[in-house]
Amino acid sequence: MSAKVAVVLSGCGVFDGAEIHESVLTLLALQKQGAAYQCFAPNVDQHHVLNHMTGEEMSETRNVLIESSRIARGDIKDLKEFSAANFDALIFPGGFGAAKNLSSFAFEGADCSVNEDVAQAVKTMLAASKPIGALCIAPAIMAKIIDGPKLTIGQDADTAAALETMGATHKITDHGEVIVDMAHKLVTTPCYMLDANVAQIAEGADNAVKAVLDLV
Amino acid sequence: MSAKVAVVLSGCGVFDGAEIHESVLTLLALQKQGAAYQCFAPNVDQHHVLNHMTGEEMSETRNVLIESSRIARGDIKDLKEFSAANFDALIFPGGFGAAKNLSSFAFEGADCSVNEDVAQAVKTMLAASKPIGALCIAPAIMAKIIDGPKLTIGQDADTAAALETMGATHKITDHGEVIVDMAHKLVTTPCYMLDANVAQIAEGADNAVKAVLDLV
Repeated sequence: MSAKVAVVLSGCGVFDGAEIHESVLTLLALQKQGAAYQCFAPNVDQHHVLNHMTGEEMSETRNVLIESSRIARGDIKDLKEFSAANFDALIFPGGFGAAKNLSSFAFEGADCSVNEDVAQAVKTMLAASKPIGALCIAPAIMAKIIDGPKLTIGQDADTAAALETMGATHKITDHGEVIVDMAHKLVTTPCYMLDANVAQIAEGADNAVKAVLDLV
Repeated sequence: MSAKVAVVLSGCGVFDGAEIHESVLTLLALQKQGAAYQCFAPNVDQHHVLNHMTGEEMSETRNVLIESSRIARGDIKDLKEFSAANFDALIFPGGFGAAKNLSSFAFEGADCSVNEDVAQAVKTMLAASKPIGALCIAPAIMAKIIDGPKLTIGQDADTAAALETMGATHKITDHGEVIVDMAHKLVTTPCYMLDANVAQIAEGADNAVKAVLDLV
């Protein structure tokens, strides 16, 4: 039996949603390492829509679940339907969507709130002692929900400080490096929180997925 | 000196734009194989916007260049700025965007037209005897522009017939297989024109990029 892994997306595009390279390369790593995956996303509106060429806000409303389905080629479920009983692991790729749509970390830092369905999914996996992976900025969500996790977001001192304010212990990492918190079965890796190229993202996703699957 | 490759995107999402997995895995293959890349897209509106969960049309207008920039993390140029003199090769990932935004093949089959900037880019590369790669349904564009190319879109008989009506010689292929037309320096591979998984797309993109770079 191959491991079943839920992947939580947060839109479709690094600046207002899920980071596309991290998302695709997480799915690729899961497929290559023999795991089955199912994508999920919360059925909520994006915080905003950004023109990725200019960084300017566009006067549009987009839904996180519908936009995430672009990455999943239509095969995606509302995160409300997620049940920890049906999956062996849970993985969050990064992108600003994790800090704007899945949580309010981009705007409120250590005082952020987390989307209810995201919090529920993480908490039920923790309670079931099943592993969770978080890439890039997604560890910020884990710092908010989990009691005193050990994790990494790479090397950005301000972001690391905000996570430590929430109770996390931050470890500095370089490209492709993974931090495993055995107590919480939490796996984190920096990906595009570092100035990385797409091959380095593939390496980070591969290593994070391997560490997650080792904990299954 | 590493090869410089232009990658032409057609939006962001398989059903109305560039196929995201094929696009990202083309960029990954280029990076891993030591090539430098620059993304381009035409600055035109998408033919339409589809909800990728339901397949239904949404009452929105989106721009191909702006949406493509999500895949490129903002680093993309208007295809009008492309010059064959500045690049060693040109690659088109697939997705319906190639048949809806870069050409009208999805609607008009063998009678399709091709976006002017796309046609110009392909023709100037041909004239310079520089290689072109086309994944998935993108070979339909090459069948329209190039005089009697040898190519593949996989195994779909109706699509292959339409390409042959335009003058192409179609070769049946399986996952990851590549057809190289040495006369036109044209490399094609089926990717999601077959019922494929993301690891098979990675293999197809790797093989296509290798064949293209071998021709540089």
